[in-house]
Amino acid sequence: MIDKLVVIGVGLIGGSVALTLKKAGYVKTVIGVGRNSLNLERAMEVGAIDDISDINSPVEGASVVLIATPVLQNHNVLQKLSWAVDQGVVITDAGSTKRDFVRSVKTLYPKSFSKIVPGHPIAGAERVGVEAANDELFRDKMVILTPFPKTDKDALSTVENLWKVCGAKLSKLPVERHDSIFSSVSHLPHVLAFALVEMISRKNGQDNLFEYSGGGFRDFTRIAGSSSEMWRDICLANKDLIVNDLEEYQTVLSELKRNIVSADEDKVLGFFESAREARQEHLIKKKND
Amino acid sequence: MIDKLVVIGVGLIGGSVALTLKKAGYVKTVIGVGRNSLNLERAMEVGAIDDISDINSPVEGASVVLIATPVLQNHNVLQKLSWAVDQGVVITDAGSTKRDFVRSVKTLYPKSFSKIVPGHPIAGAERVGVEAANDELFRDKMVILTPFPKTDKDALSTVENLWKVCGAKLSKLPVERHDSIFSSVSHLPHVLAFALVEMISRKNGQDNLFEYSGGGFRDFTRIAGSSSEMWRDICLANKDLIVNDLEEYQTVLSELKRNIVSADEDKVLGFFESAREARQEHLIKKKND
Repeated sequence: MIDKLVVIGVGLIGGSVALTLKKAGYVKTVIGVGRNSLNLERAMEVGAIDDISDINSPVEGASVVLIATPVLQNHNVLQKLSWAVDQGVVITDAGSTKRDFVRSVKTLYPKSFSKIVPGHPIAGAERVGVEAANDELFRDKMVILTPFPKTDKDALSTVENLWKVCGAKLSKLPVERHDSIFSSVSHLPHVLAFALVEMISRKNGQDNLFEYSGGGFRDFTRIAGSSSEMWRDICLANKDLIVNDLEEYQTVLSELKRNIVSADEDKVLGFFESAREARQEHLIKKKND
Repeated sequence: MIDKLVVIGVGLIGGSVALTLKKAGYVKTVIGVGRNSLNLERAMEVGAIDDISDINSPVEGASVVLIATPVLQNHNVLQKLSWAVDQGVVITDAGSTKRDFVRSVKTLYPKSFSKIVPGHPIAGAERVGVEAANDELFRDKMVILTPFPKTDKDALSTVENLWKVCGAKLSKLPVERHDSIFSSVSHLPHVLAFALVEMISRKNGQDNLFEYSGGGFRDFTRIAGSSSEMWRDICLANKDLIVNDLEEYQTVLSELKRNIVSADEDKVLGFFESAREARQEHLIKKKND
């Protein structure tokens, strides 16, 4: 049970955590903090938060602080949360990149980061903002934590329990490994989807190409509906790994292109079969787990 | 009303047309033709076809022939259908590429192609074969026809009515334009999805990366579940346009990569915003049409 939760950045993720914990009766009061006062008012209207505060003002009696802002803001946000660190409040975040968060924590609070628990819920939607927030967003979704060796056990439990109440499945990863895995299975596909939509949009001439798109295209590009600012931040925070993955992807594409150009039926078929089998094996296995 | 429908290639598409027309009572008898006798037996079991025939044997009293084989087989299939052309049977197809089909028709039957109507249903599934066939596959989906200037009006109506009974929305396109549009909005995304799965699968080491994938990845790669043989054939039949689109896509990716490498926040944000807005505008518009 959380007495007072402070949510920094009340958008899709922050708003959904607040709504879910409230519905479950797991939190008494939620305080919203954000850059945009209009957005915070909407968050009040939809019942995600009970009150509004300022990032620079200590929140009296805060039990947990959840940072759910686009990741490039995390350093500044963490800096302004020195009051919470001093009070020994449990702090966690929901950013899709973890090396940058860990770096900021260690730089800003080299001796007092034991109650800061880095986290990443693997959940999103093609809509953005607190209007899209809902109390089912994390149901059966993964949440990855990348705790420090020195992370306080009670602080870790507090964060784990918060996500369990949201219906999420918890998992832990070393921070470098986290960023590398999610560069490949999440950041890269998002970048690829945005790039496809951008390319098609540039090709639009006399015909509107989108009008001819089917369900496959809609599924493929669904993730290009998520927040532009969030994805800009992720690309810059996880730059080295994403650029590596982009290059690896371009190499695979070029290999396939060569086989198409030379009309090598066996190699093109082999490529598709190998991919198709990998997907069936792993995703169907995952579904049945 | 169709008296006797001959389906060449009773897989997901051919099987679904047969099941849908039968359920609607729009066809009396469906004759299945295919390379794989086991598959034809399954098609009988699921009720898609009533009888089996051989591609080389004329089917007496055939009203309509639907070719639903992977597109590289179409030339051979058309060649063996001279009996149907001679009988004046309406012939149509369901291939995702249309220039190759049109070329074969004009080469094989330069003086008697008026009852051959090239078609392309924009529908698919992440499963393959007649087991995945169902009578809802074409509901509210687009079917594009690319008729010849000399196409017989009654033959065109017959094919249009067949698809209308399946619940599809009909549209016409010039054949070159069809292949160009679908290279961009369908063939390219499929190739990109197969390539991503292949890349991730090659990266799998100590961790199984697929285990960390979320809903976005699943949506993005859903189309990599469709038939490998079908996609090999499409890539080779529509080679020039797909290779052009792949190159254009790689140019867009490289532009984005450069902006990420140079950490150009404005350009990366602008790229994502432009893509996101194009998607919202066109797909939401389409949904509301």
